Amino acid sequence: MKLNKEFDIKNTASTSAPSFRNFPMVPRVVYGRGSFSELGAVLMPHRKNSDAPCIFLVDDVFEGTSLVDRIPLIFNDQIIFISAEEEPKTDQVDALVSKIKNDFSERPSAIIGIGGGTLLDLAKAVAILLSNSGNAANYQGWDLVRKAAVYHVGIPTISGTGAEVSRTTVLLGPEKKLGINSDFTIFDQVLLDPDLTEGVTKEQWFYTGMDCFIHCVESLNGTYLNAFSQSYGEKAMDLCTEVFLGDLSPSDAREKLMMASWHGGMSIAYSQVGVAHAMSYGLSFLLGVKHGIGNCLVFQHLNDYYPEGVALFKQMMAKHHIALPKGVCAGLSDEAFDTMVGVSLKMEPLWENALGKDWRSKMTPARLRTLYEKI
Amino acid sequence: MKLNKEFDIKNTASTSAPSFRNFPMVPRVVYGRGSFSELGAVLMPHRKNSDAPCIFLVDDVFEGTSLVDRIPLIFNDQIIFISAEEEPKTDQVDALVSKIKNDFSERPSAIIGIGGGTLLDLAKAVAILLSNSGNAANYQGWDLVRKAAVYHVGIPTISGTGAEVSRTTVLLGPEKKLGINSDFTIFDQVLLDPDLTEGVTKEQWFYTGMDCFIHCVESLNGTYLNAFSQSYGEKAMDLCTEVFLGDLSPSDAREKLMMASWHGGMSIAYSQVGVAHAMSYGLSFLLGVKHGIGNCLVFQHLNDYYPEGVALFKQMMAKHHIALPKGVCAGLSDEAFDTMVGVSLKMEPLWENALGKDWRSKMTPARLRTLYEKI
Repeated sequence: MKLNKEFDIKNTASTSAPSFRNFPMVPRVVYGRGSFSELGAVLMPHRKNSDAPCIFLVDDVFEGTSLVDRIPLIFNDQIIFISAEEEPKTDQVDALVSKIKNDFSERPSAIIGIGGGTLLDLAKAVAILLSNSGNAANYQGWDLVRKAAVYHVGIPTISGTGAEVSRTTVLLGPEKKLGINSDFTIFDQVLLDPDLTEGVTKEQWFYTGMDCFIHCVESLNGTYLNAFSQSYGEKAMDLCTEVFLGDLSPSDAREKLMMASWHGGMSIAYSQVGVAHAMSYGLSFLLGVKHGIGNCLVFQHLNDYYPEGVALFKQMMAKHHIALPKGVCAGLSDEAFDTMVGVSLKMEPLWENALGKDWRSKMTPARLRTLYEKI
Repeated sequence: MKLNKEFDIKNTASTSAPSFRNFPMVPRVVYGRGSFSELGAVLMPHRKNSDAPCIFLVDDVFEGTSLVDRIPLIFNDQIIFISAEEEPKTDQVDALVSKIKNDFSERPSAIIGIGGGTLLDLAKAVAILLSNSGNAANYQGWDLVRKAAVYHVGIPTISGTGAEVSRTTVLLGPEKKLGINSDFTIFDQVLLDPDLTEGVTKEQWFYTGMDCFIHCVESLNGTYLNAFSQSYGEKAMDLCTEVFLGDLSPSDAREKLMMASWHGGMSIAYSQVGVAHAMSYGLSFLLGVKHGIGNCLVFQHLNDYYPEGVALFKQMMAKHHIALPKGVCAGLSDEAFDTMVGVSLKMEPLWENALGKDWRSKMTPARLRTLYEKI
């Protein structure tokens, strides 16, 4: 019987009974090209009163675009533009929560995240922190959230992170990059409009799509997988292959990549990522490298661990003329390497999923440093 | 833009604004071999007090088996064994609701359906009727349910119906076979334990699995499909093909068929079934033929509409030595044929999905009768 390690961690922390995970799913989804126009109708039944606003956290690349005009603002609703240049941070969440509490007398009716993984994760975290006291860093871990979050809606504008379906919001804290993993994290509503992903640059499209692809390679080759997650992971993988190696129209490709991200996110239910994510976390912690490109930077060197996946990845890179940055880790100090290696090796479930129970004998700090040095 | 016809019907009935469907998903799922042992822990937080029982509606094939011993009975919980020999009926729902109201002073904490589509549909309907006044037949249609159902849990013991994820419960009423389609119909919790499907007979396994397969053939070849439903339908189809034409171990086959049913059910979100289901409804209404075998009886003759699907179906029949009953419609009166044809042609969205807007010119009553006569 394969147990889910994330759940094992939870059990170790809170109860002694081993258990099958009771996986929460997004309870509502609207899908369709142009479905962003439904947002007003979707929010309406959740508006508590005219003083309890809907707060839209929007990627600032959309500032001044027609998308903003389509946001269904009424009463004292507010749009907050946020840069997704950097990974979301715990103190950024705290500042947003303070601002919202300061600006409004009533708790918001809804928090709506419109953007990529960063905006979606910020929306989840802000919704949680509006109804749970203290700072975001207090809740990084497993099942530390005690009260239901404010109703929150996720609207991805780029496909691949899986943040739209996951029960985590990964935040960079003062000491660790770790998710607020809880049943309250998951969105109450997701709206999937593939047309919103139309303006994404080729590089962003590729790196974020590869987040999904790499994630699936890792989970499908992991030791934790069961048939539930396998079926979602396989479908996400098939769709990624169609999108990145097939001959689809741009519009079909957008639709299929949005579904790949959805299924890829669902596949995490009873599976776990592996070497690429473990290493990418270290890279991101030390250098602030964004998750999507970080995974790609690492994955290209993981031939020994995922030979078929890496071969497909290189075909995809070639087809789309993607040139990854080089020398990212060149000239880093020993201390910097130690930090990265240390952060990465702390991701124990990821390593165990990838390499088995005796993973420590297979991935030593020295070996891991050698891999980082290639990047 | 493809709109969902079921939603169109809803709109015609209740509001004039065309809209994208806001699809409800099962908010909680436990998956895994042996996960039935988790049921007690799953129910515990939902127990209101010791007088508010959990009512287990269980397929009577399990009476006296070890599964019953594993049902986590406490306080005044009750098991009600129900035969799945016949399709679920509105008056059967009403009788169950009366019995439960009569037996207990408090509204139940939970209704748990354990069985195939019949038991799952009964559990959904009973949960709705316990909190909505009147008779089950009053709610057959789209979005007629006004109050949230009693917390209800679905535990399939056979795979293929998709009843575990659908927002309908199809009931045979005095005048029509029609679902209670509502957001309140969907289960609050599903537990998927593939081991529970171990004792199913070969014929039941095949007919019920074909419910999923045929459903996917119809939706993937329909005009209503979008990328969301397509991705689920394709995965369900792939899994059915693995299960019925591949070379899996019995245990892997059980796991994959359970996931095929799940994805097949999800694929209905933005799609619709077609000719086989429309005809099977007529057969079932007149002769009480069960849904699974009814679909098979019809589908074998639908070569003109689904040539590839019918070819695969015949391979599957041959591989598993399935012999369908013959002469089912032999000797029926003209009146009987008229009834079947009439019930079937009323399923307008199904016909439009299958044959396009001008379906009436393609499927006349005479042509439909000819198809029925082959069965």
